[in-house]
Amino acid sequence: MDFTCTRQELLEAVNAVSRAVSSKVTLPILSGIYLETTDGILRLVATDMEMGIEYTLPVSVALQGATVVNARVFNEMVRRLPDGPVNFVVAAETAVLKVRYQRSEVTLNTMNPAEFPLLPTILDGDRFCLTQAQFKEMTRLVCFAAAIDESRPWFAGVFCDISPTGVNWVATDTHRLALLTTELPPESTVSERQVILSAKILADVARLLPGEDLPVQITFTQSQALLETGYLRVILRIIQGQYPKYQQVIPREHKGRLTIATKNLSEAVDRAALAALGKEGSNIIKLNVENDSLTIRANSPEVGQIYEEVIANIEGETVPIAFNYRYLQDALKVIGTEEIHLDLSATLLPGVLRGVGEERYLYLIVPIRTG
Amino acid sequence: MDFTCTRQELLEAVNAVSRAVSSKVTLPILSGIYLETTDGILRLVATDMEMGIEYTLPVSVALQGATVVNARVFNEMVRRLPDGPVNFVVAAETAVLKVRYQRSEVTLNTMNPAEFPLLPTILDGDRFCLTQAQFKEMTRLVCFAAAIDESRPWFAGVFCDISPTGVNWVATDTHRLALLTTELPPESTVSERQVILSAKILADVARLLPGEDLPVQITFTQSQALLETGYLRVILRIIQGQYPKYQQVIPREHKGRLTIATKNLSEAVDRAALAALGKEGSNIIKLNVENDSLTIRANSPEVGQIYEEVIANIEGETVPIAFNYRYLQDALKVIGTEEIHLDLSATLLPGVLRGVGEERYLYLIVPIRTG
Repeated sequence: MDFTCTRQELLEAVNAVSRAVSSKVTLPILSGIYLETTDGILRLVATDMEMGIEYTLPVSVALQGATVVNARVFNEMVRRLPDGPVNFVVAAETAVLKVRYQRSEVTLNTMNPAEFPLLPTILDGDRFCLTQAQFKEMTRLVCFAAAIDESRPWFAGVFCDISPTGVNWVATDTHRLALLTTELPPESTVSERQVILSAKILADVARLLPGEDLPVQITFTQSQALLETGYLRVILRIIQGQYPKYQQVIPREHKGRLTIATKNLSEAVDRAALAALGKEGSNIIKLNVENDSLTIRANSPEVGQIYEEVIANIEGETVPIAFNYRYLQDALKVIGTEEIHLDLSATLLPGVLRGVGEERYLYLIVPIRTG
Repeated sequence: MDFTCTRQELLEAVNAVSRAVSSKVTLPILSGIYLETTDGILRLVATDMEMGIEYTLPVSVALQGATVVNARVFNEMVRRLPDGPVNFVVAAETAVLKVRYQRSEVTLNTMNPAEFPLLPTILDGDRFCLTQAQFKEMTRLVCFAAAIDESRPWFAGVFCDISPTGVNWVATDTHRLALLTTELPPESTVSERQVILSAKILADVARLLPGEDLPVQITFTQSQALLETGYLRVILRIIQGQYPKYQQVIPREHKGRLTIATKNLSEAVDRAALAALGKEGSNIIKLNVENDSLTIRANSPEVGQIYEEVIANIEGETVPIAFNYRYLQDALKVIGTEEIHLDLSATLLPGVLRGVGEERYLYLIVPIRTG
């Protein structure tokens, strides 16, 4: 193997595939990045067997070949390379990668590329395209509502409820639920299908997207999903499990509707969250409607009492309700609209947040039973 | 107590004094910030008994008084306050601080201000002034060379060797030593004096200085040092102990001198540091002179071999020498000159770094005995 490129070109690729390198080393080969040169192309691959990332970039190739280098060492080294051309060579009879730049040379140990578990080739499957903006919106508005804990793996996933006209993306940790609908272009030929994909990996993939005009093509086989855009391919396992019937959880109507400036509510909830500080802190905030305002009360023996009053437009009948402030805060930070609706029906029924003028998204919070 | 100000005004003050709040709570009162209003002035004080910080700012005072609030809670609350005026009131008959803004109110628990250990008033002592730039330069170039470990507290300090014409600031962890000389203005009336001050606290204080034109006045009593600038007063304990005779450690001459572009050497050392990665990593880098270059070699069984060649101007006789890369890296990151001199005499004698054209600073590194 013999290729030449610059730090700048290589660094983005190494950073991208490094996300698939497991922090817990199981098989030593999985601590590596697979490098392969073919005609004018360098291909980098990393996988932790849950997901795999492949990145291709054009470089000047003098000799085709493959090797595997330790991901952490290679990442740190590329980061510290000087400006200008850098030459990477694995001589035929050796098992080391020589990295040459200016008058210096680093000789890195390598692993056997034949042992590296390459990503499967996926040609067939259900397939549709999103814009990068649609993909990023989905991860921003939905992924955070999934469970962190993976004891019930489907709750750590995003449920993708696909039909020929659009996709419902759902995530819930059973305390709150986010639902976004993305319309598919009329020429889509995808069939009805439900799959669950890791919320964490989807959010990671969104961070790798450069925000360009390239579409993200999504393909599902029986057990795997492939996300492709330009020079980037990500393969992940489909999570097996019975997802709850989310449509049954969402209230069809509401008795009262509050309309509030998102920023005002978000800042008030942030302050009410002060009551959660300290050892005896409480996550509970109590909401009520008094006159023309939403009031929020929180207290803790250590901190004291917090009383917030936020101007709101009130329609219908509302009820006092208590939430874990985190579930409200999480959604207020990502909803991009200037105002939100908070729809309430009863003290023990879920509240529903929607961005004003945004029909495609809703966020449901299960209340806390108090006093 | 009753005063009104804005978040912006208060936040800088709260952030500043918060640096003196101990993370380990010993006495509960030390987890607090003391607030006191006098005529048009709010005074904030915090202390962990090692250091104390006092910050004064002009506010609108309606009623004089004092209270103590939990530092973490108060800091978080101030950070989250909305724009606009905020009113802080301790009613005479209560022990809570009411914080009022817009239509909302936070009621914070307080502690008894009579229990708070206020900072001593220091009127007399040896005294001199530095500019803020001089103070910051000293902390940048010297403090990092002190020991982190406080088992021998004087090595965790900066030794201030004061004479009427100037101050020698010294820090060493016994593996390396930094020495900076600051000239004092001719009107200084300070007498000869040696004191040791915590390097960590000095570096913290430098971060609090706004970089304005105000001088920093430094006063030493028998057991304490007072640093004052504008609205900020910091009191710290003088560390007791016998500091080593630093002048005897510094080589008076050298056999060989290398002159090297600081950036080139710094980047080469960063790459040589790759050998330190991994469980069996090595911090040792070996320097040598070959032809017109400084060569740096490092290796580790896990990573591989690193060979760096840096163009250098070479005068006199040089010797191969080995250093812990960290000690070289630390200094190269803070020396601001474009080129540095590295003066060497023998494989087992210290190397000395100086910025080219910078006579006031030197940095000495004890070599490592190898092979």
